[in-house]
Amino acid sequence: MIAIPKGFRFAGISAGIKADMSKKDMSLIFTDDACAVAGVYTQNLVVAAPVTLDRQRTPSNAIRGVIVNSGNANACTGQQGFANTEAMCAAGAAEIGCAAEEVLVMSTGIIGVQLPMKKIIAGAKLLGTSRGEDSEAFLAAADGFLTTDNGRKTAGRQVEIGGQQITITGIAKGAGMIGINMATFLSVVMTDARIDAATLQAIQSRVIQSTFNCVSVEGHTSTNDTFLLMASGVVGSELNAEELAQFEGVLEEVCLELAKMIPADGEGASHVLEIDVSGAGSDEDAREIAEAVANSNLVKTCVAGNDPNWGRIVSAVGYAGIDIDADQIVLHLLGQKLFEQSEPVTFDESALSDAMRTSKEISIQLTVGSGPGSAKIWTSDLTTDYVVFNADYHT
Amino acid sequence: MIAIPKGFRFAGISAGIKADMSKKDMSLIFTDDACAVAGVYTQNLVVAAPVTLDRQRTPSNAIRGVIVNSGNANACTGQQGFANTEAMCAAGAAEIGCAAEEVLVMSTGIIGVQLPMKKIIAGAKLLGTSRGEDSEAFLAAADGFLTTDNGRKTAGRQVEIGGQQITITGIAKGAGMIGINMATFLSVVMTDARIDAATLQAIQSRVIQSTFNCVSVEGHTSTNDTFLLMASGVVGSELNAEELAQFEGVLEEVCLELAKMIPADGEGASHVLEIDVSGAGSDEDAREIAEAVANSNLVKTCVAGNDPNWGRIVSAVGYAGIDIDADQIVLHLLGQKLFEQSEPVTFDESALSDAMRTSKEISIQLTVGSGPGSAKIWTSDLTTDYVVFNADYHT
Repeated sequence: MIAIPKGFRFAGISAGIKADMSKKDMSLIFTDDACAVAGVYTQNLVVAAPVTLDRQRTPSNAIRGVIVNSGNANACTGQQGFANTEAMCAAGAAEIGCAAEEVLVMSTGIIGVQLPMKKIIAGAKLLGTSRGEDSEAFLAAADGFLTTDNGRKTAGRQVEIGGQQITITGIAKGAGMIGINMATFLSVVMTDARIDAATLQAIQSRVIQSTFNCVSVEGHTSTNDTFLLMASGVVGSELNAEELAQFEGVLEEVCLELAKMIPADGEGASHVLEIDVSGAGSDEDAREIAEAVANSNLVKTCVAGNDPNWGRIVSAVGYAGIDIDADQIVLHLLGQKLFEQSEPVTFDESALSDAMRTSKEISIQLTVGSGPGSAKIWTSDLTTDYVVFNADYHT
Repeated sequence: MIAIPKGFRFAGISAGIKADMSKKDMSLIFTDDACAVAGVYTQNLVVAAPVTLDRQRTPSNAIRGVIVNSGNANACTGQQGFANTEAMCAAGAAEIGCAAEEVLVMSTGIIGVQLPMKKIIAGAKLLGTSRGEDSEAFLAAADGFLTTDNGRKTAGRQVEIGGQQITITGIAKGAGMIGINMATFLSVVMTDARIDAATLQAIQSRVIQSTFNCVSVEGHTSTNDTFLLMASGVVGSELNAEELAQFEGVLEEVCLELAKMIPADGEGASHVLEIDVSGAGSDEDAREIAEAVANSNLVKTCVAGNDPNWGRIVSAVGYAGIDIDADQIVLHLLGQKLFEQSEPVTFDESALSDAMRTSKEISIQLTVGSGPGSAKIWTSDLTTDYVVFNADYHT
């Protein structure tokens, strides 16, 4: 059972935004007193109304909650869209019992269509009457985030920090071939620790680099991507520097667990690729190389076909645009060495293909020299199901 | 009927490198006297043996010919691979009647496997006895270049320049989702004009930018990509500056015609996307934006599904990493305006979808501001056939 941080209330309901009324499409998460919130948002220049609003309101020590809808992203909706996102916050605030300015908002779903405000307003009321503090209410809220996700995405940890029991628990949504596409990523991670918003923001900006940003390639973000970090502060006193470092380590674990659920649930994905590059001149160089491999459709399709096609991987390393000595490339796939000193290594192709078939996670380990730089990123493979899904998911 | 430049001889045969003996897999193109040759090669750091050899030998005014094989790329084959590519040149030279150093070489096909040298040597002999100067011999040579291509790729022009009739005719090969992947691109463009190698090299370096490089995204090139420009010089005297400019214009036409055949023949492609970006701050900025759209799997899949999904296109513009005013984005698809002033435009979705279904080429026209920069690139859509093909094409 997932640990629920103290001081939060949750609700998740169906407001009829999605055609399928059996699917939840609105959520509310709030605190009894003001909480501290930090936010990191999409790098896309085309930004949805809720992102514009949240950016104005975070970081802040005076937030009470966040209202969420799925099924409609409120993106590319102009001034009306922004007015709607403000009205959605006000509707949430009425249920929480606070000012509209104390509420944040997240939306995900189709773009270019105005929010169905009657449903949103009625949905907010229903959220107010459905509120709870237990795991049932928490899971209902998690379900309200989902769009094409195959399953709910939650992760949590309970740890003792400075003699106090602290809980860090998160919700995420995001499917699609994250990183090379526009599938929206949303996450709210909550804690009952007492940390001010500025400190939260600094921690969040570091943690996202090794977690959510490792399944989302730099700059390739959707119109709505949002990651909120909320601290209710109901447990004990403020954390000191050492305790904050401990907190950050646990937060990183939670975020990485959530992050890795995203490619695992990629539309039509049959494998998750873990691409681990070391020996580069710098971490940035390693990341560029890892991204070139992760974004190669030929690599993604050969993994889908359980084909240990070292040539496609090595070629992607070669075109990554990073100056390395190609003779130093060493490639392992699922622990099997495939390429070294510019030539393929003899291996049992049929056995390795069988191993790929029965393994959900495919590790691709690349050494590209003797430098100190390394990076690890995750992505999905590319299957016919992905194409069918994305050719048919209409605007 | 395609015009054949004077002074060239051609052969194309089956040497049994490909499993299917009905398919040609070796070609020879040569001149009776020394010809001028310029070359542009892959930017990949992982480079096949024939590319290493040709780089050493071009530009040159003392080349006699090029020997080509398909079915085996001679890439990632180490020192033995380089010795084999030298031996292949020597075998070609023996048939031409020249020194091995006067011959260039191109290979395409599977990588990491040594060339079958017995077949290559026997094939070279057969090329020698199959030589011809007519279009039949030319087309046989063109067929010897092909791998997964659905069809032969040739283009030619005959023009009068400076009172002389000059022919420019080319052969290309390249399938796959060129640009984001490692599908190999090879091309030889031949002319009977008299132009020295240094001048040819300068012309070629310019022409490739607006032609072959517009279907192949910067830096994303395979281990074997090679473009040779050969001038037999048998027609009249050297061209003056004005005549050279005229020559360059015609060469650009030939290369663009060849270039556009590549995405049209992409593995499993049902549409070619023409992405035309204008109003950017610079041509480089426009190109970055066009590439972001061209490389988006979500854009490629919606085109495959005949879905005018403006949101995926606009979002790709937003994450291209180029600083533009998102409010100024205007998008037309097949001439229909879909997006302007940050909001979608009302249009007949079903009629536009029908138009996409019946159109092989899908024009995506983006204005991103009022700047002078523009770029036009071409790519293929992403179909289930592509995935099936690439998941099953084993190393």
